[in-house]
Amino acid sequence: MTLLAAIDDVGRDRKRGGYSRHVFEPAERQLREWFVEEAQRRDMAVRCDRNGNLWAWWGEPGPDAIVTGSHLDSVPGGGAFDGPLGVTSALEAVDTLRANGFTPVRPLAIVVFAEEEGGRFGVPCLGSRLLTGAIDPDAARRLHDLTGVSFAEAAVEAGLDPARIGRDDEAIANIGTFVELHVEQGRGLIDLGAPVGVASSILAHGRWRFTFTGEGNHAGATLLGDRRDPMVPAAEMVLAARIAASEVDDARATVGRLVPNPGGTNVIASTVDVWLDARADNDPDTRQVVTRIQELATDAAARENCELNVVEESYGGTVVFDAGLRDTVSSALGGVPALPTGAGHDAGILAAHVPTAMLFVRNPTGVSHAPEEHAEPDDCQAGVAALATVLGRLAG
Amino acid sequence: MTLLAAIDDVGRDRKRGGYSRHVFEPAERQLREWFVEEAQRRDMAVRCDRNGNLWAWWGEPGPDAIVTGSHLDSVPGGGAFDGPLGVTSALEAVDTLRANGFTPVRPLAIVVFAEEEGGRFGVPCLGSRLLTGAIDPDAARRLHDLTGVSFAEAAVEAGLDPARIGRDDEAIANIGTFVELHVEQGRGLIDLGAPVGVASSILAHGRWRFTFTGEGNHAGATLLGDRRDPMVPAAEMVLAARIAASEVDDARATVGRLVPNPGGTNVIASTVDVWLDARADNDPDTRQVVTRIQELATDAAARENCELNVVEESYGGTVVFDAGLRDTVSSALGGVPALPTGAGHDAGILAAHVPTAMLFVRNPTGVSHAPEEHAEPDDCQAGVAALATVLGRLAG
Repeated sequence: MTLLAAIDDVGRDRKRGGYSRHVFEPAERQLREWFVEEAQRRDMAVRCDRNGNLWAWWGEPGPDAIVTGSHLDSVPGGGAFDGPLGVTSALEAVDTLRANGFTPVRPLAIVVFAEEEGGRFGVPCLGSRLLTGAIDPDAARRLHDLTGVSFAEAAVEAGLDPARIGRDDEAIANIGTFVELHVEQGRGLIDLGAPVGVASSILAHGRWRFTFTGEGNHAGATLLGDRRDPMVPAAEMVLAARIAASEVDDARATVGRLVPNPGGTNVIASTVDVWLDARADNDPDTRQVVTRIQELATDAAARENCELNVVEESYGGTVVFDAGLRDTVSSALGGVPALPTGAGHDAGILAAHVPTAMLFVRNPTGVSHAPEEHAEPDDCQAGVAALATVLGRLAG
Repeated sequence: MTLLAAIDDVGRDRKRGGYSRHVFEPAERQLREWFVEEAQRRDMAVRCDRNGNLWAWWGEPGPDAIVTGSHLDSVPGGGAFDGPLGVTSALEAVDTLRANGFTPVRPLAIVVFAEEEGGRFGVPCLGSRLLTGAIDPDAARRLHDLTGVSFAEAAVEAGLDPARIGRDDEAIANIGTFVELHVEQGRGLIDLGAPVGVASSILAHGRWRFTFTGEGNHAGATLLGDRRDPMVPAAEMVLAARIAASEVDDARATVGRLVPNPGGTNVIASTVDVWLDARADNDPDTRQVVTRIQELATDAAARENCELNVVEESYGGTVVFDAGLRDTVSSALGGVPALPTGAGHDAGILAAHVPTAMLFVRNPTGVSHAPEEHAEPDDCQAGVAALATVLGRLAG
């Protein structure tokens, strides 16, 4: 049984399909325990840092380490590969290196980042953002999940001290190079005919919460002309997102989460929260898309006598991975292709601080963040072999 | 303290505001227990019928009774008056009649109907529909709440035998006349300058669930041209509802509930459920509105390569209340005005079986199904006095 198969049953979402493994909730904590056991089984010392990220060390923890890893949390109803494949491949790459008699000259660590998806507290890459100081710890402590639990409260429950979360210079100093393996989330490697590739860049991307406020009322007794129904401008904003993204090359804008309050069938909503995920090649393009959506949404809200409030929940500029490291990785693997991605990753956060690379494993449909997400066993094996080669080259 | 003030704290919804008192959940059960105690305090014998409706009797239960009452459940985040005002006014009207030395010739009962709002299981007036046979018991047993609990399971938990739910001829035969007092849910009585009015009719109305199915995928990595995003046609349907309703006099169409699955910010939804509440003066107008919305939604789904499935969850034709009874009630109250309503009520279900009337109490803003729903104490007192007069006239 592969390592990925060993966690096949953890956190299945019977309602949505796929997996819901949200940070510090039982399924994700079970995966963390499983990771600790697997690392210890390999005589790797494990510690949890101040921000909830797990580190397993081959060799003494210290500066200039080669670090690999990914995350174990998922989006709601996500696939089996996004995150866990990078963790299991890292463990298996260590096995491969040892089977080959390799001993690292530089320390080697496997990291599991917390809340990469933002599936529970809304901010993606929360663990790596906290570690690198990319998010204010006060802002992080105040984040809430859908049930009203704050990140500070959840951190306490997970055994952390929320007063101590935030930038961790010692941890950053230990990372000499970071390499994340991940299932590809598009069809680039299919088109290139390659099982494995190396990342060139990540789109600029962010999340915005649009809150439309109208007047809650009775769905039957309220005349159309008397309504201030925030669902109407919310719907116009969903369509505006598609329009605005289509006006800019390579841009994407998505509404996957929309919550009317109170949410009764026979009730005109009083407020509607709409989350916008927008991405583009560069900052100006991304800002242009979001500004255009905001303009259209503002007009739509005004037409319905509703108010609109927009909050930027997270933002990350375009990431261009270290070109020298990218070429080293590619040539170590016999010249695998480099390709960009529209998906965010902890590697994108770390790239601002240390030389960082990513390996992608082919996804036969390109579907991701959904139960249908897949990678063939042979391609996963190719990924492990590639990661072992890269780690061996970098740590040797 | 008024009876309504006595239940002011039960079932408050700290998240949405107002009250969430859903059938057979703790808050609604607490209200039921409170009702039983209040009835017993008045020496009224209480029983729960096979369908979960509570009956409190002044005099021996039997045919040709004068029945009044309403419901204690609420929409999510609803107001304090919709439902409970009819129950507390009934209890207070009994007090008034007794204080006046009145003894009923015909038996008099106060009824509390279960799940009037459909706030938990989706079908409004479920208790009165079951009692009158307006819904198939098998269909009712299969209804599910948001957490997956079936109505059958909830009924067991509430002490009912789900095998025995359904048409209750004995209960129907006992109702000689039904009179429901309710807070008005529009601004008719404000315009008429009257604290109390009598209902003339209820709009035809129903609920439909539109399920749009596309392909779940990654919000960043999926090109616009590769998307089958069901949120797009769902948004178009929300706008279609407004358009279609505006094309028909006096029609209303509302989307107050919309649930994308899986509902992640960085996830293109795989399905979106949209609940439509549509109402109009008569059946053909209502059907025309719904058909038009369905046409526009079908086109929108096709443009996004999504599938659309539409299910009618409930429907009730136009109710015209018994004209003779309406005139009797109005003249007993010195000629209070008659007015139509867009809101559904258990009285509308019973009207197909027994002479039925409704009293409305003025609502100073017209807002209902929202925390701002209100009735002034003086108007509530006028409602109690009016109900006592009507019950005395009918039962004397």
